[in-house]
Amino acid sequence: MLFESPSVERLVEAFRRLPGVGKRSAERHALHLLSAPPEEAQFLSEAIRDARERITTCSTCCNLTETDPCPICAHPNRDKSTICVVERPSGVMAIEKGASYCGLYHVLNGALNPLEGVGPDEITVGRLMARLKQGEVNEVIVATNATAEGEATAMYLSRQIGELGITVSRIAHGVPMGSGLEFADNVTLSHALQGRTRLG
Amino acid sequence: MLFESPSVERLVEAFRRLPGVGKRSAERHALHLLSAPPEEAQFLSEAIRDARERITTCSTCCNLTETDPCPICAHPNRDKSTICVVERPSGVMAIEKGASYCGLYHVLNGALNPLEGVGPDEITVGRLMARLKQGEVNEVIVATNATAEGEATAMYLSRQIGELGITVSRIAHGVPMGSGLEFADNVTLSHALQGRTRLG
Repeated sequence: MLFESPSVERLVEAFRRLPGVGKRSAERHALHLLSAPPEEAQFLSEAIRDARERITTCSTCCNLTETDPCPICAHPNRDKSTICVVERPSGVMAIEKGASYCGLYHVLNGALNPLEGVGPDEITVGRLMARLKQGEVNEVIVATNATAEGEATAMYLSRQIGELGITVSRIAHGVPMGSGLEFADNVTLSHALQGRTRLG
Repeated sequence: MLFESPSVERLVEAFRRLPGVGKRSAERHALHLLSAPPEEAQFLSEAIRDARERITTCSTCCNLTETDPCPICAHPNRDKSTICVVERPSGVMAIEKGASYCGLYHVLNGALNPLEGVGPDEITVGRLMARLKQGEVNEVIVATNATAEGEATAMYLSRQIGELGITVSRIAHGVPMGSGLEFADNVTLSHALQGRTRLG
């Protein structure tokens, strides 16, 4: 334990709850904030409170946003006939960084996982279906993760959305660009072969 | 950028200032706090503010503490004739985890570094000398880091403290326990050979 102080213990515990932060990193963060000028600690403490107060969920796409509707849903130049479905806000962030997609998004806030009690009602499938029934959308691109839960969610969505007569597609899985075959695992290679496209 | 939100940008920037946290981890931390229940963010925000308000510096050993004097300086069973000098509060933490040292500490809050303008007045050498002049201490163990600055600080302290007729020692540097020679670098091996002790 650190300095036999309950307040420091609580601070270390709070840092440990962040993703990918273990005991050592949490202690390092705590020591840093306690040794640095008080403004540093205040800056982080207030940034957390402030962001949490301002950020809400977009009532259309369920992404995190400071305004409702979010800047992407409200943008006049985005293609409103395509929706890309992702599990988490971080998915939107990753695709937006690429800057090659100009349609809209839908954030599920999870993936189907019956073993842990996550069914369609626990994620935002209902709100996605309601959006689709408004009739503006031609294609739904399912970009859930390439995990068992993400694949199951993709299958479920393709059945549900297919009934509405809307095209459903899945993002390609294969060897990452700039990487060699020797770095890809077997499942990825098998996907890459199955998903081959014709040249010329 | 993340959601085109100034408050989220500020939160990511605040996380990036923590030691060892890059852009990606900072974004992950921010997303986690924004997606988790509001209590999570509040817990961290308040833990930071609370710890920063309660934690102060021990007026004797300069370590971080919630009470003054700190629990180590105030402990009746600690050996008051020995002081172990470390650069940072994390040094105290590391040695206390070992639980084999029962003397007192002195935290320098840095190491001598003339090139960056850190002289004896910028670290707590003056307060250490004042403690020693009270006459209770027989030995000072210098546990500054094994860097150029740490070694220079150790040399400086040994000259200053030697004049008071107090024994000054340096912690041993060598091959870590449980590790093989093949994992040690040349400088460590050279230190390990020079610092050899006689068996039997």
